[in-house]
Amino acid sequence: MTQIDPPGFTGSLLDRSDLVRTDAERLAAMRASPAAKLLALEGIDPVLDAGGRLSWKSLDEAHPDAELIFLGIEEDCPRFAEVRRDLPDGVNRSVAIFRMLDIMAAGEAGTYAAARSLIDWHVRHGFCARCGTATAMFRGGWGRKCGGCGSEHFPRVDPVVIMLGEYEGKVLIGRQPAYPKLRYSALAGFLEPGESIEEAVAREMWEEAGVRTRAVRYVVSQPWPFPSSLMIACIAEVDRATLTIDYTELEDARWVSRAEVAAALAHEAGAPFLPPPRYAIAHTLFEHWLAGE
Amino acid sequence: MTQIDPPGFTGSLLDRSDLVRTDAERLAAMRASPAAKLLALEGIDPVLDAGGRLSWKSLDEAHPDAELIFLGIEEDCPRFAEVRRDLPDGVNRSVAIFRMLDIMAAGEAGTYAAARSLIDWHVRHGFCARCGTATAMFRGGWGRKCGGCGSEHFPRVDPVVIMLGEYEGKVLIGRQPAYPKLRYSALAGFLEPGESIEEAVAREMWEEAGVRTRAVRYVVSQPWPFPSSLMIACIAEVDRATLTIDYTELEDARWVSRAEVAAALAHEAGAPFLPPPRYAIAHTLFEHWLAGE
Repeated sequence: MTQIDPPGFTGSLLDRSDLVRTDAERLAAMRASPAAKLLALEGIDPVLDAGGRLSWKSLDEAHPDAELIFLGIEEDCPRFAEVRRDLPDGVNRSVAIFRMLDIMAAGEAGTYAAARSLIDWHVRHGFCARCGTATAMFRGGWGRKCGGCGSEHFPRVDPVVIMLGEYEGKVLIGRQPAYPKLRYSALAGFLEPGESIEEAVAREMWEEAGVRTRAVRYVVSQPWPFPSSLMIACIAEVDRATLTIDYTELEDARWVSRAEVAAALAHEAGAPFLPPPRYAIAHTLFEHWLAGE
Repeated sequence: MTQIDPPGFTGSLLDRSDLVRTDAERLAAMRASPAAKLLALEGIDPVLDAGGRLSWKSLDEAHPDAELIFLGIEEDCPRFAEVRRDLPDGVNRSVAIFRMLDIMAAGEAGTYAAARSLIDWHVRHGFCARCGTATAMFRGGWGRKCGGCGSEHFPRVDPVVIMLGEYEGKVLIGRQPAYPKLRYSALAGFLEPGESIEEAVAREMWEEAGVRTRAVRYVVSQPWPFPSSLMIACIAEVDRATLTIDYTELEDARWVSRAEVAAALAHEAGAPFLPPPRYAIAHTLFEHWLAGE
């Protein structure tokens, strides 16, 4: 059996210790611990050490106005991240982050993903969606509570289906206009209220490529912290090769064989497309498909 | 092979026609169509006809101040739902809704689930979480836009993992204090930012039952509109039978055999527990486990 790496952003060693979040006394002890560490960030990007690992600093170095998120415990050290209202570049994606992800281990990226998604959510949720009043962090940073109506708000996780449509031994790949040159990937879209994973896959295949889906099999998942998606990777049998492409979503879509996908993943000269990066679930999905799953 | 019914809330015949949402002209034509129908509701509960099907009425019957959601097209009729700010009982769960779900077909419940989750989200998201200004519906009801900072907000879907831990041919079931008497179900919990489905299953099994997970297999999914969960059902192999139960979450947890689960699903006298209702994914998950999947 082919050895397939675990998906990017999975395998974090963080113990989330959720009971601490709602226990004011234990939370205070974690903050007061001399072993406590603060995630080092530049804006919302990580600061990596020479080995490509996350850097941590002392809690004393937190910005005086920052709110602190209790991430959990790793290597016996309580781990925190700070939410600064004055984030220099806000929570936009930098060019640098994707270069960093190329060299980070998946587990380290997973710890960072949790912190990044939470910080991003706090920065964009300072007010109550129900009444418009300012909110404040509670539960150690795993929620915000309204100072007016008392509503409790919790971080979002947005499920996204990402899938390879399969027909007669080939799979469907597509490219969005914003992709780097020659890059193709699996089709994808946000799952909507009122549908299952299987229904979202079928709807997206229909909307983007005009093909009907016969069977959907779940393959693997990963968190994707831009800003807080849950990527759910599937393989779907479709009913025909003829495509009706939605050009508002895709620039192109095409069928590729196992040999073509293998050449692309191996970055062979003459491969028909550039694959998604190693840390993206689409890469893992291609590997699973090649392995015959 | 045993025939297992599709999960509750799946199989809606609604074509969501997503391109209409962003096309003002087509959206106006849908609203003006004499075939257009409005979902009949009492508060946020459906109004069922004698056959247990959803009732629909004319768009003229919408409340004058209501905002209209374009749900999609079914049987050549544009389908809408209204968001009334004066919902009599807000968006709370009534006792009646669960009796209705007992008699509704899964596909009808799926159409209702989409409408209910959206209405609930609109009612609780009248203000911008980023700046506190009032928001207004856009994209045919599939989003809200801030009148102040211009931020766009989209309906939430909250992924929940629900799983049967398996050890030596038995599975772990639990009951929450709020359950009806004798009811047991699969353990479950919200997936958090920065984790995969498999990691969320492992974390929840550890937090709630104190067992470590060896392998997780995805089984099936469903939407659950209370208010807008995506239920992701899995089976997890765990490392031991000894439990450390988190009594803040569970009132009890116990191991049951195939014979015991089969007796419970058949509502046999002397069965050791009452199963979850037919429309809940936990019921479907038990069936898949009994079928050996």
